[in-house]
Amino acid sequence: MDFKEEVSLWFGELQFKICQDIKDIDGQGEFIFENWNRPEGGGGKSSHIQNSSLFEKAGINYSAVHGPLPKSLELAFHMKDVQFYATGVSIVMHPHNPWIPIIHMNVRYFEMDGGRSWFGGGIDLTPHFIMEEDAQYFHQELKTICDEFNKDYYPRFKKWADDYFFIAHRNETRGIGGIFFDRLEPQSIHERDILYQFVKKLGSSFPKIYAYFLKKYRNLEFSESEKNWQYQRRGRYVEFNLVYDAGTKFGLETQGRIESILMSLPPMASWKIDQPILPESKEAHTLSLLKKGIDWV
Amino acid sequence: MDFKEEVSLWFGELQFKICQDIKDIDGQGEFIFENWNRPEGGGGKSSHIQNSSLFEKAGINYSAVHGPLPKSLELAFHMKDVQFYATGVSIVMHPHNPWIPIIHMNVRYFEMDGGRSWFGGGIDLTPHFIMEEDAQYFHQELKTICDEFNKDYYPRFKKWADDYFFIAHRNETRGIGGIFFDRLEPQSIHERDILYQFVKKLGSSFPKIYAYFLKKYRNLEFSESEKNWQYQRRGRYVEFNLVYDAGTKFGLETQGRIESILMSLPPMASWKIDQPILPESKEAHTLSLLKKGIDWV
Repeated sequence: MDFKEEVSLWFGELQFKICQDIKDIDGQGEFIFENWNRPEGGGGKSSHIQNSSLFEKAGINYSAVHGPLPKSLELAFHMKDVQFYATGVSIVMHPHNPWIPIIHMNVRYFEMDGGRSWFGGGIDLTPHFIMEEDAQYFHQELKTICDEFNKDYYPRFKKWADDYFFIAHRNETRGIGGIFFDRLEPQSIHERDILYQFVKKLGSSFPKIYAYFLKKYRNLEFSESEKNWQYQRRGRYVEFNLVYDAGTKFGLETQGRIESILMSLPPMASWKIDQPILPESKEAHTLSLLKKGIDWV
Repeated sequence: MDFKEEVSLWFGELQFKICQDIKDIDGQGEFIFENWNRPEGGGGKSSHIQNSSLFEKAGINYSAVHGPLPKSLELAFHMKDVQFYATGVSIVMHPHNPWIPIIHMNVRYFEMDGGRSWFGGGIDLTPHFIMEEDAQYFHQELKTICDEFNKDYYPRFKKWADDYFFIAHRNETRGIGGIFFDRLEPQSIHERDILYQFVKKLGSSFPKIYAYFLKKYRNLEFSESEKNWQYQRRGRYVEFNLVYDAGTKFGLETQGRIESILMSLPPMASWKIDQPILPESKEAHTLSLLKKGIDWV
């Protein structure tokens, strides 16, 4: 088994493990798994849960695809007529309860003929209502994971997330950010292994990090107006994913598997006009914190 | 008053007239008007109705903007350091009742220093459930309007709409199409006046055409499952508008007025997984007709 197969196998196990852990916390729903094949090579396994105890919709997708490098990537990578291999896990979870944040995580590994390879990924949190202590918890967890590998990771990847998860036309961040990194190209086997361990650590930490929010807020009651605010915030999530998200754009342009690419879209979202936002309200407070450069830790 | 001011004035009146007519049919709601200014020159008047008798949300926007040609248009038009003037009316209506189709219309006029000018526009219908007789009615109305001016208009603009209102990643048209045209650049004053008359005729016909559907279906009862299907189809509408619509993309890239640009988005939309579509159902029938090249007339 070569390295890419090892990574791919581990990602497959990660998907399974996260499904198990989330199902246990949920206590009611079952993940539905679906295998799919890519005509040009490889395939994946999607999994989702819908209308369970905690989730309106949550998806965890695994894929390992390969074949000739798609035309759109040839341009981006300045490569021609090469084979590629890409594997990863993508997660987006939309809870029922608006006090629980939306979460997203992605970890991925990419390889091309000729020895070039890299890791990418990220995790970010989108609370419908931002609470500073929660943002601090989330970022502290990520900083601890990063610091174990490289003290530069957290500040660098935190800024990268601020810049990436940004809805330019609203001048709003998607949520409170997190970390984001792409094309971390190892220069040696040793470096590659460190990056791999980092990505594994991040992936494995997902259930614990999200469980914190699930447990904290699962029994907190919410009003119709709080639910409506959630629908509005999910509308922003749709805007980000369809207008800016690089993975989504790439997937749509290369005729990827639509159900997997758009798995991230919320079960229900709204765009109402003139939702009045009162000064000093928690909605106004949330909007005031949707900006880059906040040092949450 | 020069030509562009005349067109702009007429568009302003059109907005007002359509609001009146739609309000009369609705019988309950009131349009709310809002003026806005563009820092670089000009502005507009948006109007919307929400939670009225017939509409969950409907918007009719008028604008007349001018100033230095934005950078992104300089590239597209191969022009530099020129002034432009653009005026138009945009309409999108999302009814409560899923038997009533979503409708969209846009008419616009554009002028640049140096004498270049053109008209553009279009109208298309997105039924949540496609009924052939309705599609035929809609297209026959448009063909009659077109034929009065030029026998080539309808076949040319109908095909243009099929190609334009297309969700490539779904391999689905947005609805049953209609007509679409852009950059119709008159070569003489006479030609300009004919185009203007055509655009006026199209704009003026809007209330009559849509009233046909509003009256036909306003009292037809619908089930929860039909309402849910409407939410799903609205999800496709969001996908088209955020991923493909040229006006939306241009607006977002040039930091236009967000409330007006995204006025077209539905009040509530859904992306659920695995909605089962039974063969021979009206949902399956609708999906089978979401394709280009159908001769509805």
